[in-house]
Amino acid sequence: MATRQQKRLPRHVRERQMIDAAVRVFSHSGYHAASVEEIAEAAGISKPMVYIYLGSKEGVFTACIHREADRLVEAVRAVVRPHDTPELGLWQGIGAFFRFVADNRDSWKVLYQQARTQGTPFSGEVADARCRVMDEITALVVAGTRLPGGERIIDEQEAEILARMVAGAADALTEWLLENPDETPESLTERVMSIALVGVERFNSGDVCEA
Amino acid sequence: MATRQQKRLPRHVRERQMIDAAVRVFSHSGYHAASVEEIAEAAGISKPMVYIYLGSKEGVFTACIHREADRLVEAVRAVVRPHDTPELGLWQGIGAFFRFVADNRDSWKVLYQQARTQGTPFSGEVADARCRVMDEITALVVAGTRLPGGERIIDEQEAEILARMVAGAADALTEWLLENPDETPESLTERVMSIALVGVERFNSGDVCEA
Repeated sequence: MATRQQKRLPRHVRERQMIDAAVRVFSHSGYHAASVEEIAEAAGISKPMVYIYLGSKEGVFTACIHREADRLVEAVRAVVRPHDTPELGLWQGIGAFFRFVADNRDSWKVLYQQARTQGTPFSGEVADARCRVMDEITALVVAGTRLPGGERIIDEQEAEILARMVAGAADALTEWLLENPDETPESLTERVMSIALVGVERFNSGDVCEA
Repeated sequence: MATRQQKRLPRHVRERQMIDAAVRVFSHSGYHAASVEEIAEAAGISKPMVYIYLGSKEGVFTACIHREADRLVEAVRAVVRPHDTPELGLWQGIGAFFRFVADNRDSWKVLYQQARTQGTPFSGEVADARCRVMDEITALVVAGTRLPGGERIIDEQEAEILARMVAGAADALTEWLLENPDETPESLTERVMSIALVGVERFNSGDVCEA
């Protein structure tokens, strides 16, 4: 069965299967305990094939980090519809972000937390992936500071500062979400939205300048 | 002169001089271009002495990351006085955080940004240092959600969530501060405080639950 698959599938499909399997294996065993053998077995292909496609265990892990970041960015984009108001788009996008983290708890712990903190050679990859995700959130917040007609509620620089704060807050809450199994993505979305919306109000009313 | 110093100074003083010099050299040249020779010269001691004290260029850099994190935590603690109201303490602490980053712009870029993103073996050290600093800010925010008499304004869990959001927002704005030389620590402090205070109000009034 594995042999027939190897002959038939186009490269990108095979690669996707391999990465799917690798994400499962890494999530379950952690980076150090996982072996290429285990990944090959989970993907239903031979070990040399994994090396041919992705070079090394390190290469497989890097591919997993990239792919999961792609999926997260996609998940955020998928919920934002063109006819949504900017505020609704922001609400949906932040919701999708936290839902993704909650739904992919195990892979998040390995691919982001473990790779970022354990001094593995992947910290640069994780930093890049995190930047891409945060840029996506930042762009949503900047868009969210416009009225449905497109006029700005607050000026460009204020929007950018607010957006970075909101993205930083959302990023910080992923850890809270992982540590607290009873926490829901919806509740965290409300909290982040509350600071985003109030930020818009305050920057707009000039309160922040009088403080 | 260097020789006399080597004989006279106690270890911790010598080590501090070495790290002071190393922070300057790394900030100026970046990790890869900096040499132990240059650091020894800047510290006014011999190269073997640097190896004896800190083992390697890697050891020197790690010591710099730790020392700068200590200094930042100290800077935040130093401005919070026992008789301050919790809110004033929070205001002062966040202000000290941004002032430290602004005043130590060059070392921040090398010790935190470069070490975190370039896949060097220091990402774990930076993650630890960042956690310590963020824990300090988080504790200040949690304290800031009490009235001067010590009663809680919002419950413990809400305070913890808010604190993490505020710390994440402050962390995200350090990058903005480094990228925008005209930005002031005071202005960023006001922005972060605005979300902290409004967070307290909203959590307290229950607005966030009705959203």
